[in-house]
Amino acid sequence: MSVTLAIDVGGTHMRAAVFPQGSETPSSQTRIRTYAGGTTSVDRLIDLIRQVTPPGETIDAVGIAAPGPLDPKRGIVLAAPNLPEWVNIPIPERIKNTIGAPAFLGNDANLAAVGEWRYGAGRGHHHLVYMTVSTGIGGGVICDDHLLVGARGLGAELGHVTILPDGPLCGCGQPGHLEALASGPAIARFVAGQLAAGRASILSGTPDTKTISQAAREGDPLAQEAFQRAGHYLGLMIANYLMIFDPTIVILGGGVSLTGDLLLEPLRKTVRASVLSAHYLENLVITQAALGDDAGLYGALALARGEI
Amino acid sequence: MSVTLAIDVGGTHMRAAVFPQGSETPSSQTRIRTYAGGTTSVDRLIDLIRQVTPPGETIDAVGIAAPGPLDPKRGIVLAAPNLPEWVNIPIPERIKNTIGAPAFLGNDANLAAVGEWRYGAGRGHHHLVYMTVSTGIGGGVICDDHLLVGARGLGAELGHVTILPDGPLCGCGQPGHLEALASGPAIARFVAGQLAAGRASILSGTPDTKTISQAAREGDPLAQEAFQRAGHYLGLMIANYLMIFDPTIVILGGGVSLTGDLLLEPLRKTVRASVLSAHYLENLVITQAALGDDAGLYGALALARGEI
Repeated sequence: MSVTLAIDVGGTHMRAAVFPQGSETPSSQTRIRTYAGGTTSVDRLIDLIRQVTPPGETIDAVGIAAPGPLDPKRGIVLAAPNLPEWVNIPIPERIKNTIGAPAFLGNDANLAAVGEWRYGAGRGHHHLVYMTVSTGIGGGVICDDHLLVGARGLGAELGHVTILPDGPLCGCGQPGHLEALASGPAIARFVAGQLAAGRASILSGTPDTKTISQAAREGDPLAQEAFQRAGHYLGLMIANYLMIFDPTIVILGGGVSLTGDLLLEPLRKTVRASVLSAHYLENLVITQAALGDDAGLYGALALARGEI
Repeated sequence: MSVTLAIDVGGTHMRAAVFPQGSETPSSQTRIRTYAGGTTSVDRLIDLIRQVTPPGETIDAVGIAAPGPLDPKRGIVLAAPNLPEWVNIPIPERIKNTIGAPAFLGNDANLAAVGEWRYGAGRGHHHLVYMTVSTGIGGGVICDDHLLVGARGLGAELGHVTILPDGPLCGCGQPGHLEALASGPAIARFVAGQLAAGRASILSGTPDTKTISQAAREGDPLAQEAFQRAGHYLGLMIANYLMIFDPTIVILGGGVSLTGDLLLEPLRKTVRASVLSAHYLENLVITQAALGDDAGLYGALALARGEI
């Protein structure tokens, strides 16, 4: 028997899942720290692959989801604040040379979109927009059953787009990016700023997104406004994406999306109010992701299996 | 011999070009009014096709560029302020039944993108963003050699996107669309508003875009600011499109783009200042369209020849 390996690499942990041939259910999952001991994270990745491969079985292919920007054609990470060791190293070639199996690298948000499309909330759709709303905002787009990657593999940075030119600075240095208005830290920053300005609330200090969502559920107006504001800007940009991509489904993943209707109600309201015509809303689904943290792994599986 | 017909339909005129088999040069071009006499514009289209077809030659196919929104798969115009008679009529079927040749319908801005890609400034590129800046702002996108049309055929409305949430109202009723900030009428409206507010200028009253561009070349600060402002918002949104599509070329067509550096210099400056990373600018071309008013016709040719 042979297996396909799907690996999701993050700044703190790497996860590997082993999929028997033809199966959508992993036979095992392993999670290790990205950095530990005296070896590099690249060597730890190679060791992880050796460790999870069942004895006597061959590896068909390895799919790897990694934080971008990266060049999926050449298999090279171009920049990764949390993975400096990965920059400009041809990871797939290293795996091919040491393990002997073909390996493929993709941007984690793009591959999460693929995961949801092939195995999650987006099954059966041909035109899909996926956004992950977490500490940052990333995205992936399926156009007519093709993953949009762009000429250099840098496409679908759906959170690093200007939506409020005079808005707050994004972590990337640009003003008014969606990520600076609707990510978890952006929501927390808004609340902290309002509290510092003397706004009344059951919250105090610098609460995190989870604490703010609890306060919103308890009826705190500031906490509710924080999610309405984030949902509004997400809705404005999603309306733009409807006009740009004309998809049949918009999938929201990432930790902040788990707050559900707190975020999704204002988001949907703004989307409905902001489209060029009602045609864009016909049979349109706006929904939460189905695969949670596994979306990237499933996207890496699809990449390894040549399903993209 | 057989010919392919390419037709561009507008609110005031229809143009037809006859292309001999295998040729990129039309053997004839004909232009008639869209409305005249007692017949409908659809009947006038059928007559135009009969009129331009050389005697004894057969028509391989007819490609038609029409103002959207339209459904290119079903060949139906969904709404067209300037072509009310076309709405919900299956034009390709009518042509097939009366002329006997297969016919294909596409959105004029999308097809202008295709024209520039196959026959104009975008030859050889695989990832292309085209924007026409005129009385409105439309667009077309080529992703990995595929025209982006979306699930309902309504994609790539690159001018009807929010870039300044509290900005001026667009003709479509939405606030802060790019079209409301950077189209010809938007530039004229900005100047008229500044003049009405008492701003000093060699201009007066309600000058049109051409007059404003002349004043800008003569050094009038208000006229120059009007183009800088339009170029800035175009640049902000083009930077977004770089992050979204990661193209190798951005082509600007339409009457307003003919003002050249007045618009393109501030546009390029904003693009350079607004990208997430310099990788997006590597080998990036930002240029004016090569085919002018013929872009839609050439796109219709490509559509008829099955090159999309």
